[in-house]
Amino acid sequence: MGGINESEKYLLNRHKEHHFTAGEIVRDVIIGVSDGLTVPFALAAGLSGANVSSSIILTAGIAEVAAGAISMGLGGYLAAKSEADHYDRELRREQEEIDTIPDSEAAEVAEYGVEPHEYGPVVNALRKNPQAWLDFMMKFELGLEKPDPKRALQSALTIAIAYVLGGLVPLLPYMLIPVAQKALVASVMVTILALLIFGFAKGYFTGDRPVWSALQTALIGAIASAAAFGMAKAVQG
Amino acid sequence: MGGINESEKYLLNRHKEHHFTAGEIVRDVIIGVSDGLTVPFALAAGLSGANVSSSIILTAGIAEVAAGAISMGLGGYLAAKSEADHYDRELRREQEEIDTIPDSEAAEVAEYGVEPHEYGPVVNALRKNPQAWLDFMMKFELGLEKPDPKRALQSALTIAIAYVLGGLVPLLPYMLIPVAQKALVASVMVTILALLIFGFAKGYFTGDRPVWSALQTALIGAIASAAAFGMAKAVQG
Repeated sequence: MGGINESEKYLLNRHKEHHFTAGEIVRDVIIGVSDGLTVPFALAAGLSGANVSSSIILTAGIAEVAAGAISMGLGGYLAAKSEADHYDRELRREQEEIDTIPDSEAAEVAEYGVEPHEYGPVVNALRKNPQAWLDFMMKFELGLEKPDPKRALQSALTIAIAYVLGGLVPLLPYMLIPVAQKALVASVMVTILALLIFGFAKGYFTGDRPVWSALQTALIGAIASAAAFGMAKAVQG
Repeated sequence: MGGINESEKYLLNRHKEHHFTAGEIVRDVIIGVSDGLTVPFALAAGLSGANVSSSIILTAGIAEVAAGAISMGLGGYLAAKSEADHYDRELRREQEEIDTIPDSEAAEVAEYGVEPHEYGPVVNALRKNPQAWLDFMMKFELGLEKPDPKRALQSALTIAIAYVLGGLVPLLPYMLIPVAQKALVASVMVTILALLIFGFAKGYFTGDRPVWSALQTALIGAIASAAAFGMAKAVQG
């Protein structure tokens, strides 16, 4: 019994595919496009309700896209960085505990109703290979996976670019149509269509029901822009 | 040997405190305030650079706050919901695999270099208690914790309220000062101060260096608003 056999390996691989979830880049694209399509759209719609020219709406929209892309991109950068820092800190702490209090590390398995004479053999096996033990504890006890060092920059750029691309869709009509009320109608149509397509793709990639996801995504955009429209009207009184 | 003794329990508790990280509510407040302070601030600053009156800046700012709070709040709601759905799907799949292919489930421990005769006793112990085995596999193999059913609504409201509160800080001066250029100066001062305080608190609660976190947070706000200012000037140019 020197490991696992072929049929077990097959099952493990099949098993892994079963647990497939959206990759990190897909997640970042979703974060960026999702907010990028919604907020500049709602802001532009809101300002259209307040009797403002297309030119000012475009200025506000583009300022928002720049601010949002940078804020979300840098936010993503810092989140990935602090995740990596957190992993390193926990890794050092876990390493120290394995070195200094191996018995109490082993006792943590007891939370699952496993008795010492039962988990003893596993602990002894892991003790022979401290690196494997460390990996095991990081994943088992803390649920942490080793982060990719290039992740932070990649995440920042992905979110920011996705936000800009999403944000340009609702603003495009205001660039082409000088009368704000007409531009608004075109913006609503183009953006609802984009939200439906994006929502469908999001559902497809994350394993949600695509049609349901499309409707949900479009509904959020509609609610946000209706609220922005209402608030802008109220402020302008 | 009927479990773990008192000194081990003490070490386990101490150990848990060591691994303390920010709670989910703190995380939601941080997400909301972080973007709420930054984006409306940058938008207002950008529009001030484009010779627009305080009244229009306020309209745009409040429309943005409404849109951003709803977009982020509903985004948080859906994220928590789809996390809960994901957990339920994986739970059913894992349950099915434990029922139908228990041997290959057990073989997954072999990835860590543990031999069958070594993990055998743990697997046998877990088999006696299928619920514990299920919990163990959910946490160990998939790194998933059981989500709280009230989480989605709570997360949505926390993020939205935090966004509104954050967003009102940079807009307050535009409510009180009719001349946009003067309001901008007050808004920059109030918001940089708020970003420093918020960044410090964020660092304190998440275990980062607070002073470093304060400077980083203020810097993101400054960069985002400088970019929005530049873009607005370019569009109006």
